[in-house]
Amino acid sequence: MTELAAVKAALKTQAVETPSWAYGNSGTRFKVFAQAGVPRDPFEKLDDAAKVHEFTGAAPTVALHIPWDRVEDYAALAAHAEKRGVRIGAINSNTFQDDDYKLGSICHPDAAVRRKAVDHLLECVDIMDATGSRDLKLWFADGTNYPGQDDIRSRQDRLAEGLAEVYGRLGENQRMLLEYKLFEPAFYTTDVPDWGTAYAHCLKLGEKAQVVVDTGHHAPGTNIEFIVATLLREGKLGGFDFNSRFYADDDLMVGAADPFQLFRIMYEVVRGGGFTSDVAFMLDQCHNIEAKIPAIIRSVMNVQEATAKALLVDGPALAAAQDSGDVLEANAVLMDAYNTDVRPLLREVREESGLDPEPMKAYRSCGWAEKVVAERVGGEQAGWGA
Amino acid sequence: MTELAAVKAALKTQAVETPSWAYGNSGTRFKVFAQAGVPRDPFEKLDDAAKVHEFTGAAPTVALHIPWDRVEDYAALAAHAEKRGVRIGAINSNTFQDDDYKLGSICHPDAAVRRKAVDHLLECVDIMDATGSRDLKLWFADGTNYPGQDDIRSRQDRLAEGLAEVYGRLGENQRMLLEYKLFEPAFYTTDVPDWGTAYAHCLKLGEKAQVVVDTGHHAPGTNIEFIVATLLREGKLGGFDFNSRFYADDDLMVGAADPFQLFRIMYEVVRGGGFTSDVAFMLDQCHNIEAKIPAIIRSVMNVQEATAKALLVDGPALAAAQDSGDVLEANAVLMDAYNTDVRPLLREVREESGLDPEPMKAYRSCGWAEKVVAERVGGEQAGWGA
Amino acid sequence: MTELAAVKAALKTQAVETPSWAYGNSGTRFKVFAQAGVPRDPFEKLDDAAKVHEFTGAAPTVALHIPWDRVEDYAALAAHAEKRGVRIGAINSNTFQDDDYKLGSICHPDAAVRRKAVDHLLECVDIMDATGSRDLKLWFADGTNYPGQDDIRSRQDRLAEGLAEVYGRLGENQRMLLEYKLFEPAFYTTDVPDWGTAYAHCLKLGEKAQVVVDTGHHAPGTNIEFIVATLLREGKLGGFDFNSRFYADDDLMVGAADPFQLFRIMYEVVRGGGFTSDVAFMLDQCHNIEAKIPAIIRSVMNVQEATAKALLVDGPALAAAQDSGDVLEANAVLMDAYNTDVRPLLREVREESGLDPEPMKAYRSCGWAEKVVAERVGGEQAGWGA
Amino acid sequence: MTELAAVKAALKTQAVETPSWAYGNSGTRFKVFAQAGVPRDPFEKLDDAAKVHEFTGAAPTVALHIPWDRVEDYAALAAHAEKRGVRIGAINSNTFQDDDYKLGSICHPDAAVRRKAVDHLLECVDIMDATGSRDLKLWFADGTNYPGQDDIRSRQDRLAEGLAEVYGRLGENQRMLLEYKLFEPAFYTTDVPDWGTAYAHCLKLGEKAQVVVDTGHHAPGTNIEFIVATLLREGKLGGFDFNSRFYADDDLMVGAADPFQLFRIMYEVVRGGGFTSDVAFMLDQCHNIEAKIPAIIRSVMNVQEATAKALLVDGPALAAAQDSGDVLEANAVLMDAYNTDVRPLLREVREESGLDPEPMKAYRSCGWAEKVVAERVGGEQAGWGA
Repeated sequence: MTELAAVKAALKTQAVETPSWAYGNSGTRFKVFAQAGVPRDPFEKLDDAAKVHEFTGAAPTVALHIPWDRVEDYAALAAHAEKRGVRIGAINSNTFQDDDYKLGSICHPDAAVRRKAVDHLLECVDIMDATGSRDLKLWFADGTNYPGQDDIRSRQDRLAEGLAEVYGRLGENQRMLLEYKLFEPAFYTTDVPDWGTAYAHCLKLGEKAQVVVDTGHHAPGTNIEFIVATLLREGKLGGFDFNSRFYADDDLMVGAADPFQLFRIMYEVVRGGGFTSDVAFMLDQCHNIEAKIPAIIRSVMNVQEATAKALLVDGPALAAAQDSGDVLEANAVLMDAYNTDVRPLLREVREESGLDPEPMKAYRSCGWAEKVVAERVGGEQAGWGA
Repeated sequence: MTELAAVKAALKTQAVETPSWAYGNSGTRFKVFAQAGVPRDPFEKLDDAAKVHEFTGAAPTVALHIPWDRVEDYAALAAHAEKRGVRIGAINSNTFQDDDYKLGSICHPDAAVRRKAVDHLLECVDIMDATGSRDLKLWFADGTNYPGQDDIRSRQDRLAEGLAEVYGRLGENQRMLLEYKLFEPAFYTTDVPDWGTAYAHCLKLGEKAQVVVDTGHHAPGTNIEFIVATLLREGKLGGFDFNSRFYADDDLMVGAADPFQLFRIMYEVVRGGGFTSDVAFMLDQCHNIEAKIPAIIRSVMNVQEATAKALLVDGPALAAAQDSGDVLEANAVLMDAYNTDVRPLLREVREESGLDPEPMKAYRSCGWAEKVVAERVGGEQAGWGA
Repeated sequence: MTELAAVKAALKTQAVETPSWAYGNSGTRFKVFAQAGVPRDPFEKLDDAAKVHEFTGAAPTVALHIPWDRVEDYAALAAHAEKRGVRIGAINSNTFQDDDYKLGSICHPDAAVRRKAVDHLLECVDIMDATGSRDLKLWFADGTNYPGQDDIRSRQDRLAEGLAEVYGRLGENQRMLLEYKLFEPAFYTTDVPDWGTAYAHCLKLGEKAQVVVDTGHHAPGTNIEFIVATLLREGKLGGFDFNSRFYADDDLMVGAADPFQLFRIMYEVVRGGGFTSDVAFMLDQCHNIEAKIPAIIRSVMNVQEATAKALLVDGPALAAAQDSGDVLEANAVLMDAYNTDVRPLLREVREESGLDPEPMKAYRSCGWAEKVVAERVGGEQAGWGA
Repeated sequence: MTELAAVKAALKTQAVETPSWAYGNSGTRFKVFAQAGVPRDPFEKLDDAAKVHEFTGAAPTVALHIPWDRVEDYAALAAHAEKRGVRIGAINSNTFQDDDYKLGSICHPDAAVRRKAVDHLLECVDIMDATGSRDLKLWFADGTNYPGQDDIRSRQDRLAEGLAEVYGRLGENQRMLLEYKLFEPAFYTTDVPDWGTAYAHCLKLGEKAQVVVDTGHHAPGTNIEFIVATLLREGKLGGFDFNSRFYADDDLMVGAADPFQLFRIMYEVVRGGGFTSDVAFMLDQCHNIEAKIPAIIRSVMNVQEATAKALLVDGPALAAAQDSGDVLEANAVLMDAYNTDVRPLLREVREESGLDPEPMKAYRSCGWAEKVVAERVGGEQAGWGA
């Protein structure tokens, strides 16, 4: 197989998981702008997600968020997905929208609240069993707003205890993906603020516990690709929550704020073997002002383009320049791949896979947007709260 | 008058404006945790604000937010305030919660939306006339989320045009206070991101236009007291929106995250004559998880303590050390004031003003919290959206 | 002229000024790694700069730094430049390396030190007269390390006074370019920390005073292209000091850290008419570990590529998408230009201009690097201190 | 023993290690301002350090930096220290000032350079043996300036290999303290950028390997006290390099930029048992413009004051407020301690220990500064390079 054929082959297997909640309404603390045609239940979210997969060929799984996607019959939900050509991806827990969680969930000073939180996590594993999902994705809004509010160390003890119970409940082929986040909604400390904390917990839990890197959850100036390389080296990178940010956790379309960073991340993924392992490539975005399905298509394409560039890096030339200490040449080899316009290549990949080479145009002309605006009338639109 | 007497006299005249919305519910994009006893209308907010003033003696005015505080009869609202011992402060406009404002208000590409926004601002001036308010406080959520989304420069032109029309409507003793903010809810650009932009617009508008410094609206590492000193030197500091932050616009209690910064800011205010001029000292905070009235009392006290320390700086000793280039001694003179425990001094000030020396304890034992929890049943609690 | 022809014509006129000091040694506070073949005097720096221009055709002027480039006969220096095919660009003052400047220069509390600093600036104008330079570029290391160290406001007064004297000395076609910087070497305040401060001073000085944007001198998260757009709108953008940074003022090759940001900046320059006006495009970089001349060639090429992409933005399509509020389409139009591989276009531009299409390869094979390593033996290598 | 007596007893045992290099000249990349009276060799540095201990009673050990403090006879150096009343503290390696280290030391692509670096580290252990030092403190300037420059993961492999060899050489009571730093002098990646990376390496090395927290080595917004609490919980906090910063690694006097943060850190140290364990409290500062010995005295006092406040926190009241979820009260308990003026308490502690209650005044009147200015004439002043 030629070099280019190998690149194409790799691109054809790439899978990006889209999040059910990105099809619903979202916003900032100032305002949620509702959009016409937005799904009203998990089934309609899957319908939209299936459209993204239909046109990109690269979004075969859909992450759920419980309780936002709570249904009576999860097997039916999974069957619905399959009928539409997609599958259920990670189950995302939510322990931040109940009044009991005002001061935390799994780290709360009150044991009763912790019990409730852990029970919810266990319920999520039940849902994994019912839907065939492999990954339990845990992000905790836990933290404190004011110095002194709670004891940092005790909260770590509680966290460790709760995680251990849930870990013990995992099935053989299930994983626990622990996400970290610097701040928001807690503004003084969060209980898992950085990769080091997530890593330390996962290490103690065992092999099924892995770290998730959300590209919007770091302090300014953090070198994310270094973290990616390090976690891959440690065998502890479970997956990504992709999005992009200029300031905080802006949750913009992946690749929109710093496409060069996304390329560098994907390069480290390729370099570290993450592209051919169990690393999950998930989106976690909020499309506050832009049309949702096209935004997600665009995001999938942005990941594909960054990946294509990463795959095009001339490895031997790079290694040679690095070994000889030629700073400019090594950088030039990397930039050469980045500066390449990979859109023609991806159009070829799509055509060879029987897809329209232009997913966005194809979606726009398929009539789905108009159809859902016309049909999805009445009911309550899905959003972060429902 | 002795030195200390002068400090006390200054402290007795200090006024901190509290914001009506800080008495209502607030939260993050993840969740608003409602609190029992929260006001259900502007009149009840004023009742709560009056309690803060009753126990601190330092919060005589209350800022309104339109439309959150829209009432039929503003004169009645002002009279209600006066009856409770407080007055109406700045009128804050809101051009971010109507569906029309999804892509901006006064900077929107569509002239009709801009017209609507400007009309709202003019309505706010009407309310100023009706309530005797001096200050129109303008913060615009306008901006863009994605590069290319709109034309940065055209938006500035639209902003200038809209501001000019509103400025022309101001009465003789009325002011326009223009606030800047780095980001949120817009994540790529905001249309007034920094003091320089606000200053440039105010300069062209005229003397009644002044800049507002919200202490949570800067990029990490920004030296806020430098901005304060500079705006005072330029005669363009209209006031403050006080709050504190560890990361972004966290809107925590002022002085909670970096009390030394608050002291340095107040020192520049004192140094620059801002303490005895028209600079408005306003709070703009969100009490997401803590009790609201006590949080505001605490905030007023934090401002008082920072001010007391600033007033205690030994000016001649500082100037002497600065002039002689004695870096350590100059720093030591400043730190000497900061390291002083000024709480005894403020207790004296309160007692001399006929107040309880311990505002928090006094409030806690007065029964108001229990009373409002019992009485404010039914109706819709006030919040950012209502 | 077709669209593409116009783009090419524009690219052919683009001029990037290279800084004399970038050809000498530089480093961090930890270590300066000397490189073989580095120039030993201003004449040799011009020789190197001429090589950059010879192969790029886009670097016709060279900025000087006084006293690093102090010579007996400036007319001779200018003549040497001309003989090599380049000209003298901006004169950069240096008021930070004399022992007297420990606590500042033009803002120093001691009038004698201020006098010395102003005299140096006046000397720089003399050098402008002698060399035909148009621009006096002022960056002040002035500031304080500790709160209280000096009086922020008095320092502004001193700054204004010193600048006014120097401004008065400018000839008819000369300009004063005032640079701002957030921090370093001063760590608490600098005396011109942001564009607002530089702008306020320039406004008072007059039309010949303009602001310089160094792309590495901002707080994390600052939207630099917004500042560019704003300064152009105000008629106050004098020029750029290009370089790139991941953390602080890293002074890496422009375009190396965030090429998308550089593109966005160049887009605002094109949009605001800066590309066809007097805006000076200067490099200000430190090549601590990489070969200097190739690094500068690469930097010039990076600016060219960003400019080419900016020129390729489909203006009418962008405006149409912006006016209709189509967020995704507007962003897509911009990204379309960014994602284009413009290297073939620039190769054409160079060939049409009689240049080698591959400046880096051409330089590498011309033998200059080997020649200077062989010939520049003995003497003292140029660096930041000499 | 009463509560206060216990606090005093704790304060009397507190030891802050001062760094030999802080007594020599230092600066920024722009300029090193030399100071009169600065030591010219390690013996004179110890003389100065002894003065700090004489007046504070809290600085009994002095860290060395090799090769800056290289002497022929380390036993003689240790004896000199003892004669002056102090001891040798941590040995700090330096693998960044030799020309070979341009592209790294222990992580360099060239095995010969790595060998040289590891040999230097082994030499440092020899010096520990000779001086009785317990701690080998490792900070590596290793990293890259440009994406692609070297392979992130291979550098980790090299790092692990080198550390393992040095770890194997440690004596029974010796420790390896691994420091992390976000950036500088490397500007794209450093090879140990965060606590997670240092922790992961230390974990594999074994019990004698511990993490050092330099308070100036984090990304903006990082919650340092969380890291302190976490490392203590993991048994992996080896010590601190104290200093303070507003922007980057400013290396200002500890407590000068954010005294509240220092207090929060010391609170977590007390809370986590670090105050009574082997955690080393070291200073690592640069006194670029201020007098060095007084700056170090001030720094020791700042650490003492923060510690005193941390010890004064009313533990039971804090725990009660935390357990009951009273956010404001818990915060108030902490702030109560912080707002206390502990300077009178520390004066008492000093008097009870037979010291002058005012170390700064006592030092200033003892004549040492005048003496060394007069006597230390000729020779080469110590600095970062010598």
